[in-house]
Amino acid sequence: MNEGKKVYLFSEGNAGMKKLLGGKGANLAEMTRLGLPVPPGFVVTTEACNDYYRQGEVLTEELKKEIFTALEKLQEATGKKLGADDNPLLLSVRSGAYFSMPGMMDTILNLGLNEVTVEALASATGNRVFALDCYRRFIQMYGDVVMKIEHSNFEEILHEVMADYKVHKSQELPVEGWAKVVAGYKQMVMAKSGEPFPEDPAEQLLNAVKAVFASWNNQRAIVYRRLNQIPDDLGTAVNVQAMVFGNLGEDSGTGVAFTRNPSTGEKELYGEYLFNAQGEDVVAGIRTPLPIAALNDSMPEIYQQFKAICHTLEQHYRDMQDIEFTIEKKKLYILQTRTGKRTAAAAVKIAVDQVAEGICSREEALLRVDANQVEQLLHHQIDPAAKLEPLAKGLPASPGAAVGGVVFDANVAQERGERGEKVILVRAETTPDDIHGIVAAQGILTSRGGMTSHAAVVARGMGKPCVSGCEAIKIDYATRSFQVGECVIKEGEIITIDGSSGNVFFGEVPLISPRLSGEFNRLLGWADEVRRLKVRTNADTPADARKAVEFGAEGIGLCRTEHMFFEQDRLPLVQEMILAETTAERQSALDKLLPVQEGDFVQILREMKGKPVTIRLLDPPLHEFLPNQEELAVEIALLKERGEKGVALQDKEYLLKKVRALAEFNPMLGHRGCRLGLAFPEIYRMQVRAICQAVVTLIKEGLEVFPEIMIPLVGHYRELEEMRRMVLEEGGQVMAETGVRFNYTVGTMIELPRACVTAGRIAEHADFFSFGTNDLTQTTFGFSRDDAEGKFLPLYLEQKILPENPFVVLDQEGVGALIKQAVSAGRAARPELKVGICGEHGGEPRSISFCHRAGLDYVSCSPFRVPVARLAAAQAVLLEREGNAELSRGSV
Amino acid sequence: MNEGKKVYLFSEGNAGMKKLLGGKGANLAEMTRLGLPVPPGFVVTTEACNDYYRQGEVLTEELKKEIFTALEKLQEATGKKLGADDNPLLLSVRSGAYFSMPGMMDTILNLGLNEVTVEALASATGNRVFALDCYRRFIQMYGDVVMKIEHSNFEEILHEVMADYKVHKSQELPVEGWAKVVAGYKQMVMAKSGEPFPEDPAEQLLNAVKAVFASWNNQRAIVYRRLNQIPDDLGTAVNVQAMVFGNLGEDSGTGVAFTRNPSTGEKELYGEYLFNAQGEDVVAGIRTPLPIAALNDSMPEIYQQFKAICHTLEQHYRDMQDIEFTIEKKKLYILQTRTGKRTAAAAVKIAVDQVAEGICSREEALLRVDANQVEQLLHHQIDPAAKLEPLAKGLPASPGAAVGGVVFDANVAQERGERGEKVILVRAETTPDDIHGIVAAQGILTSRGGMTSHAAVVARGMGKPCVSGCEAIKIDYATRSFQVGECVIKEGEIITIDGSSGNVFFGEVPLISPRLSGEFNRLLGWADEVRRLKVRTNADTPADARKAVEFGAEGIGLCRTEHMFFEQDRLPLVQEMILAETTAERQSALDKLLPVQEGDFVQILREMKGKPVTIRLLDPPLHEFLPNQEELAVEIALLKERGEKGVALQDKEYLLKKVRALAEFNPMLGHRGCRLGLAFPEIYRMQVRAICQAVVTLIKEGLEVFPEIMIPLVGHYRELEEMRRMVLEEGGQVMAETGVRFNYTVGTMIELPRACVTAGRIAEHADFFSFGTNDLTQTTFGFSRDDAEGKFLPLYLEQKILPENPFVVLDQEGVGALIKQAVSAGRAARPELKVGICGEHGGEPRSISFCHRAGLDYVSCSPFRVPVARLAAAQAVLLEREGNAELSRGSV
Repeated sequence: MNEGKKVYLFSEGNAGMKKLLGGKGANLAEMTRLGLPVPPGFVVTTEACNDYYRQGEVLTEELKKEIFTALEKLQEATGKKLGADDNPLLLSVRSGAYFSMPGMMDTILNLGLNEVTVEALASATGNRVFALDCYRRFIQMYGDVVMKIEHSNFEEILHEVMADYKVHKSQELPVEGWAKVVAGYKQMVMAKSGEPFPEDPAEQLLNAVKAVFASWNNQRAIVYRRLNQIPDDLGTAVNVQAMVFGNLGEDSGTGVAFTRNPSTGEKELYGEYLFNAQGEDVVAGIRTPLPIAALNDSMPEIYQQFKAICHTLEQHYRDMQDIEFTIEKKKLYILQTRTGKRTAAAAVKIAVDQVAEGICSREEALLRVDANQVEQLLHHQIDPAAKLEPLAKGLPASPGAAVGGVVFDANVAQERGERGEKVILVRAETTPDDIHGIVAAQGILTSRGGMTSHAAVVARGMGKPCVSGCEAIKIDYATRSFQVGECVIKEGEIITIDGSSGNVFFGEVPLISPRLSGEFNRLLGWADEVRRLKVRTNADTPADARKAVEFGAEGIGLCRTEHMFFEQDRLPLVQEMILAETTAERQSALDKLLPVQEGDFVQILREMKGKPVTIRLLDPPLHEFLPNQEELAVEIALLKERGEKGVALQDKEYLLKKVRALAEFNPMLGHRGCRLGLAFPEIYRMQVRAICQAVVTLIKEGLEVFPEIMIPLVGHYRELEEMRRMVLEEGGQVMAETGVRFNYTVGTMIELPRACVTAGRIAEHADFFSFGTNDLTQTTFGFSRDDAEGKFLPLYLEQKILPENPFVVLDQEGVGALIKQAVSAGRAARPELKVGICGEHGGEPRSISFCHRAGLDYVSCSPFRVPVARLAAAQAVLLEREGNAELSRGSV
Repeated sequence: MNEGKKVYLFSEGNAGMKKLLGGKGANLAEMTRLGLPVPPGFVVTTEACNDYYRQGEVLTEELKKEIFTALEKLQEATGKKLGADDNPLLLSVRSGAYFSMPGMMDTILNLGLNEVTVEALASATGNRVFALDCYRRFIQMYGDVVMKIEHSNFEEILHEVMADYKVHKSQELPVEGWAKVVAGYKQMVMAKSGEPFPEDPAEQLLNAVKAVFASWNNQRAIVYRRLNQIPDDLGTAVNVQAMVFGNLGEDSGTGVAFTRNPSTGEKELYGEYLFNAQGEDVVAGIRTPLPIAALNDSMPEIYQQFKAICHTLEQHYRDMQDIEFTIEKKKLYILQTRTGKRTAAAAVKIAVDQVAEGICSREEALLRVDANQVEQLLHHQIDPAAKLEPLAKGLPASPGAAVGGVVFDANVAQERGERGEKVILVRAETTPDDIHGIVAAQGILTSRGGMTSHAAVVARGMGKPCVSGCEAIKIDYATRSFQVGECVIKEGEIITIDGSSGNVFFGEVPLISPRLSGEFNRLLGWADEVRRLKVRTNADTPADARKAVEFGAEGIGLCRTEHMFFEQDRLPLVQEMILAETTAERQSALDKLLPVQEGDFVQILREMKGKPVTIRLLDPPLHEFLPNQEELAVEIALLKERGEKGVALQDKEYLLKKVRALAEFNPMLGHRGCRLGLAFPEIYRMQVRAICQAVVTLIKEGLEVFPEIMIPLVGHYRELEEMRRMVLEEGGQVMAETGVRFNYTVGTMIELPRACVTAGRIAEHADFFSFGTNDLTQTTFGFSRDDAEGKFLPLYLEQKILPENPFVVLDQEGVGALIKQAVSAGRAARPELKVGICGEHGGEPRSISFCHRAGLDYVSCSPFRVPVARLAAAQAVLLEREGNAELSRGSV
């Protein structure tokens, strides 16, 4: 590679140059190298893009020179000349970044057309309508992308001319009509922009390159990168390629296909094409295309050639490919190949199948499945036992079932989604501008577009159910409703969509819990052989525990005892305990709670027999169990106003007094965790006794149980020292009373910065540490999650103050540094210290990778994240072997 | 020293053995070595005490043997034998720890008396009344200390016998009366304890030693240690010494004296004595003693001998001494010497005088003044210009003026003190049981007791004003009032006491701000020459700034702009800004605030001309400026109940909606600090503009000003990067508009754990760091100060979970570790980084010492703490030179 070189011919590059040439460019080069039918072209590098921004958004003279040199060679290769009045060269100018960002950046096709070349094209193709259609498409794209003229301005002119000619489809316009459209476009551009549409193809080319560079930083690209955790400083390359035309008549066409089914993973050519169309028509989902197999009927030799190329590419790249092609007058061209995006189910099946086929190794297979995505496989499905009549049926574009109220607008979807409502976004088709609505919705339903339409691709990427091309539904945006036959569904009414079958149902349909598929189980089995981290689950109920074990959990990392307190039948007892005036009164309430808690522990420990169960003693501040202060105050004021004086008022006044006394300015930093245990040791003693008595019961049943008693919110070793003493004392008493000896350990949550900094001293009193990264993130950042996520965190992500939400992805630089410090000091003080994590990060792949590198013994996460964690833990090992800290994001 | 040796004769020890022998024992040994008249004795070591606790509170056989061996030698030295029926040896058994804990532990005098020896004592002294009085005192002390029999049981018997004999003073009892008292005591002891009072002097001795050991852990000793930050594991020694008797008649007596005035520091013998009394009578404050000078009249040769000994001891110990003495039949004995406790004023004067006298060096002088205590010198005094008629006059026992409501009971004092009320504790005398009340009170007034009474000593130690021995007031506990002449003052009524003059006034008297005395100024001048840390002040107003400069502040380390926002005339503008619906509305409110803030900055910067001023931009969450949510809700509910429908209701409803929207679960961790600046940059821009325009105004006046703009609550470098860009932009605009160039720096508070952990990256964007240790302590511990101090922190201190309140004394192990990490990473990234502290710890001596060692450039504290900080900063340098991390606590 030449250091300063900023433009590469396809024939000069290869697949390894993705960083420099972008994914699309590198693969075009690679395919050229493989001798596949790729129209010739060149790539302006991502380096050039970064230069462009560094120079203040201008193209350097050197770059322009390089571009024109490459253009010369392209002209030589094609034997055509840009701007020539005879058989002129036309170009496609497309973006192509390191990571694929489909539809996010800009593209200009048919570049090089002007008043002269349009005529040359007409005579070269013998098709003036075609030439004029190409020209008006070019003016529209260039006008939109380079000159920033609203799309609707073009639409208007087209519709006016169509009205003049009284036609309903643009295809029916006569050649004069097209000429009028072109003229109308050019006049409008002049009027809107104050300058004429450029005639000079060189000027067109340079402006198009600039516009593609600029599109790297358009709003939707920025949002997409944030969503997909793609760095902002990679830049995009620009692919300049000789145009081929899929819209030269019925012996031409264009399409996209996957080498395997991206939804199920089945080994079958899977895709769609449109006769007489340009590529954007397929992707945009405006016309519903034909399945790829239909090509076998119309052009069998082309179909066979394409199938062979697909096989070649899959073998060459050793992974499923997503291929764009165009047929120009019965000649096949490959315009792009890339590793195909797929659903989690497909990813799993393809990886496992390809291992069987000898295409890739188990390790590669493990790395090929996006751990973040596999949780989808565990989403709910429609109960197959339910007898249901679908309202309509569309394409099964992204699997899984979703239930929600109908909305017709991305903004409304976002608004309601933020309020916690579940919505289904229903659109004729979606565009990149709808992304925020898709993010907010439970699922997507479109009336147009195929399996590779925007909605389908994006929904699969996000793991959201999608039914596309459901042409039976007629959407009326004006009345905010859609109609199916005689049935009218209005905004807000509930529907269920099943992205696995394509069915749409009215109302909420019964769903069932998913199970692990055979392939997925096999993959996770391989993961289990590779990973070092153990995977536990956070579960407070026997049902959750059972589910998690089914998913492979090796223990419970966090059993929250307060969730048991909140249950309806216990809350009055808990309140009685809190409102107690004396220790004796409190003890009496605790005596009633003891058998209830003991029963809880018997159940959960029995469910987890043979596996460790970490039980955290009471954590939340007591006022969480009492009524709302403001509401009580209002109630009392009103009772008084009404002249009330009875016992009811006095009771409420007493309650308010108590609520006030317990109220805190910052409950998150208040009287909770072990601070409660120190102030009200009788509460903790009751819990420890309940655990120990449960253990005795189970031992008598002949079961092996491994309880680990966890003290929350320790910041100073003295807190743990005291609490440990109390636990051992109570445990000893139960042993003495029952004559049964049992083993248990005592450890602590590490969830305060001080605990991390002084972990060495704390470890002296702990059998284990479990990082509570939710609270640790709150205190390390000084962020109250409840407040931050509703107030300033969205702004922080928006303005890129933070690279991501630290409550979702562990902040390695800050929180992670404290964790490493704690692990190392803790182990130094007590080498056998068991160390895990039980914050939500324990189920997030990048955080799991960090936990692996930090030397933790286990991660613990919600039951549905257990398979995610098993896979991510294996990936962490494989990446470490490769010397990579983290998996690259998304496929390219 | 012999490793295993647990008992030392006085003649075997010296002053350097304080750790082992306790302060009292080591000094008795030293005085013995100096040839001073010390009754012979021996010391059971602190090691023996620790052994005692380790062994489960028993005396080992080895120890008993050592005690009896020492006793043998003592008998040889005195020629008397314990328990002998002829001229028997009597012993005093006294506690003596490393740090003096006056009155906290137990003492037993006259040990060795029984039915036989009491008669021997009677014939040896020829005074049977004396012998019986000694015996009944011994029974009482032993009964109280060893056998735990309530004091009142003895009092009752004494009063019964006195009634029988119809006498009003015990001195008037005839010899048979005393015999009856003794008999009555012994019967009562038998009845109460179920065992006879021990006759065996050896048993008495061992039990007394055990009782003294046990008193190390009595409640008041524990409280005292906590208050004085004395470690719990030091243990106490026991001093066993031949008795001498100050109560052998009018040619006997006992007293205590300081070699200089402990209240003012004047060089004069200062003390008191009582004829015909035992030591406890003076200290307990039950009889009002005579001034020491009176001894010159009654026994001039003894007075001269004593004066000479005082001089010897002061020269020997090179510091002011507090000496206990007894005269037995015209023979002087010295029973104790120790470095005398003194008021801050006296400490300063003595230190400065002793430098002048050549007794100690400047460095020693600096180390001798307790930095924590000197703030007292800056407490308010009664305005000398006020014409006042005192209600009564007592002894000026501890200087300073205090105003408060009268209370008569330590518990009431504590209760009201905790509610924030200012109280004066009024007692006939105080005892160690009253300590919690003294802590809670503003000042102490007693009707009995001298300058060395319990109240006086304790109050001086705490720097609280005290008037003692104010005999004009007649206290009636039953009616909770006191009377002076005809005037009756009831509980709760306000009085003012002046501990400098001894005056007591009715009502609240005008007070004036204090100034630095000449000596104090001189001492601080020496401190300034020694210290490396700069001392700044936290000041929000020109008046505070002026005061601080007077006290030596070298700049402002924290000027909080929000305090300006809370002022009455600005609050409506601030609320208008907050309630603004649009940025334009907000801007309009800000435009009105701008000139107001600019005026503030002009004033404060002018006051601090030539010195740096760190101005922190808005920090608190916006809802702090709005009305209370609950109150509003109640108000609205009531308005509605009353059928109100007007604009007033709507306005309130709107306000409530806004208050609710801004309300936070954990405001401490919420939308505040730079999070506000990022969300509402227009607010910060206004503040920056106000600062810059103020700077321009002052530059035009020809003044030099050094503003430092501080961004609060930064946790991620990107926050600071953005805010810094904004500040520089706004500053640049003001320069451009005014054509005036000026210098300023931009830095950040470091008050979040994440900021400490990532300080290197933050430093890239900061000219300075200022540790906000209040918030840093909150987040590092996960303690909300507002909640913790009212809820669990008292319990934590009580149960010794924490050694001290981390909001008062910096937690070096946790918070300090983060600070060190931040300083080192910050300086590594930016070597010229200026680093200071502006939390409250910046005025606390031990925390200042830490800041010195951590390499900070300055500390900043409240104006009245500036002299404290100047002294503490110098002490930190001196201690570092000596290789000590911290000043030992208190004097010994």
